[in-house]
Amino acid sequence: MAVRAGKQTFIFENGVYYLSGASIVGKKEGQGPLGMGFDTVLEDDLWEEDSYEKAERKMFAQALSKAAEKAKLEQNNIDLIIGGDLLNQIISASFAARDFNAPFFGIYGACSNMAQSLLLGSCLINAGYCTNILCATSSHFSSAERQYRYPLEFGNQRTPTAQWTVTGAGAAVLSCVKSGVHITSATVGKIIDMGIKDGNNMGAAMAPAAADTLAAYFSDTGSKPEDFDLIVTGDLGLLGKDIAIELLEKKGYDVRPRMNDCGCMIFDQSQDVHMGGSGCGCSASVLNSHLFNSLTAGIYKKILFAATGAMLSPTSSLQGESIPSICHAICIEGAKI
Amino acid sequence: MAVRAGKQTFIFENGVYYLSGASIVGKKEGQGPLGMGFDTVLEDDLWEEDSYEKAERKMFAQALSKAAEKAKLEQNNIDLIIGGDLLNQIISASFAARDFNAPFFGIYGACSNMAQSLLLGSCLINAGYCTNILCATSSHFSSAERQYRYPLEFGNQRTPTAQWTVTGAGAAVLSCVKSGVHITSATVGKIIDMGIKDGNNMGAAMAPAAADTLAAYFSDTGSKPEDFDLIVTGDLGLLGKDIAIELLEKKGYDVRPRMNDCGCMIFDQSQDVHMGGSGCGCSASVLNSHLFNSLTAGIYKKILFAATGAMLSPTSSLQGESIPSICHAICIEGAKI
Repeated sequence: MAVRAGKQTFIFENGVYYLSGASIVGKKEGQGPLGMGFDTVLEDDLWEEDSYEKAERKMFAQALSKAAEKAKLEQNNIDLIIGGDLLNQIISASFAARDFNAPFFGIYGACSNMAQSLLLGSCLINAGYCTNILCATSSHFSSAERQYRYPLEFGNQRTPTAQWTVTGAGAAVLSCVKSGVHITSATVGKIIDMGIKDGNNMGAAMAPAAADTLAAYFSDTGSKPEDFDLIVTGDLGLLGKDIAIELLEKKGYDVRPRMNDCGCMIFDQSQDVHMGGSGCGCSASVLNSHLFNSLTAGIYKKILFAATGAMLSPTSSLQGESIPSICHAICIEGAKI
Repeated sequence: MAVRAGKQTFIFENGVYYLSGASIVGKKEGQGPLGMGFDTVLEDDLWEEDSYEKAERKMFAQALSKAAEKAKLEQNNIDLIIGGDLLNQIISASFAARDFNAPFFGIYGACSNMAQSLLLGSCLINAGYCTNILCATSSHFSSAERQYRYPLEFGNQRTPTAQWTVTGAGAAVLSCVKSGVHITSATVGKIIDMGIKDGNNMGAAMAPAAADTLAAYFSDTGSKPEDFDLIVTGDLGLLGKDIAIELLEKKGYDVRPRMNDCGCMIFDQSQDVHMGGSGCGCSASVLNSHLFNSLTAGIYKKILFAATGAMLSPTSSLQGESIPSICHAICIEGAKI
């Protein structure tokens, strides 16, 4: 049975099922256009914890539990947790996994985490290594701001191309047990760096990676943008999305009619988020609420989910480096009943 | 064909071959007992770069190139790079992968990185997703000190239980193409946290994770410590190694006669490293020099390589948290000719 197409794409013919998706977001995200679809909307970003980091970890743990619960699985039915987040040493993921008593793979793909965890999880399910895998990621506006940028108390001015880190977590259960939604193929991205050095313009930095991976997916699988109801990038934001569309046009793919971006979907322009949402909690919470629900309901039959990540660190930026970026693409299909 | 044993162990029956191992270390490591076995020993830890971070990245890239070269592979024969390191946002791995033009998975398992990358790589090779995969990791004493502890200029006193972060990188090529050394099974670790809060005693924090994973390996596969020529943990150091041996004794496994630890092997006690070496470059450089060479030469027929990681961050420690730890175990065998 084929497990490989072209240079970068894996095929999952044995059945990789997306049993459940769970999401939890902050208050601002709950007030956005997708607010009704999230499982939990926090009233307060600290969520009764004494630090933003602890609140983020609690969100991560809550997403894991909720996804398992929705899939009707007990903790001991989970073979593996694959997760990561934006905090140094992925402390949200590893501290949340500590209480789950399951084998754990830590990953780091910046905001591409949700796609990377689904990709690895799909490989392991398709090859028979695992029955049920939890894939999850999170981000938190306030923990990310103080780690990557400035303390909130500093009140720095945001530039017009900046995006707003989503406070949110998303988790999915992948399984070999049949269900309505399944993952059929995926493309592993390369690190792409076109020399953008502005940490406040991550959309521009990540757009070439999105275009590269999407073009590789189309080429490897012989598919066309028209084969999808929706092509949805992780968190390029308004500017990055436009750049990716243009770059794909130059490569001969017209994605404009069916392309959207989780960073553009999660907030309304009136919410003062400049270019839109970002952070790995952005694509994770959008995928595991609105998108998963739309696939379950048959509104979408087939989507291409392409989460993007900017692999910069404050240290690399201070040392004058540009922003290496990556994007992994996952084809998710509704039931063929 | 079986791909799974027990609750945490994967079996690789299709042939996962360890084509080559490459290592590069700093001057101090070169002066240690294993010094002769490394491919490259640096004279100067900055290696003509203007920051320790850039020197570490150069080591990572060099390890990748050298491993590919030893396996007689061109860049375009590499299907995937799996890598991570200790620096925030794994910048050594992602910046090194940028110049390699291959699909990339970023991982974070702290000092367990080498085992985690080999484990994932073995799954992907065994299932037919890839032909050749580069697995790599690195650490650097000076970049780690200033990120995790204090600026070097501060000249802080090291406690008796502290370990010395190895300046080193290691890379391996895994392949479905037959060669003398192969990976036959592996156990995915759980996050284990027994409440140790002292960041200068990571051996004690990680030892329970090592014992948990090794016991799971023996139990899942029905094997015994005596089946191995060497059981080698990642970087528990002198104290952590003793604790792990004791914990395994309590679980009914006598590993003492064949147990060693990369952190104890890489330095001599006269080198003033207290409990020994640490950092993901420690187990990576020892595995991809001395251990790989011993397997190739038939000195060892079968080893269990169990790299351990402490998933703490300076932030989690400052917030009063203990140290969640993890260990993945890989069974590597010499040729059965």
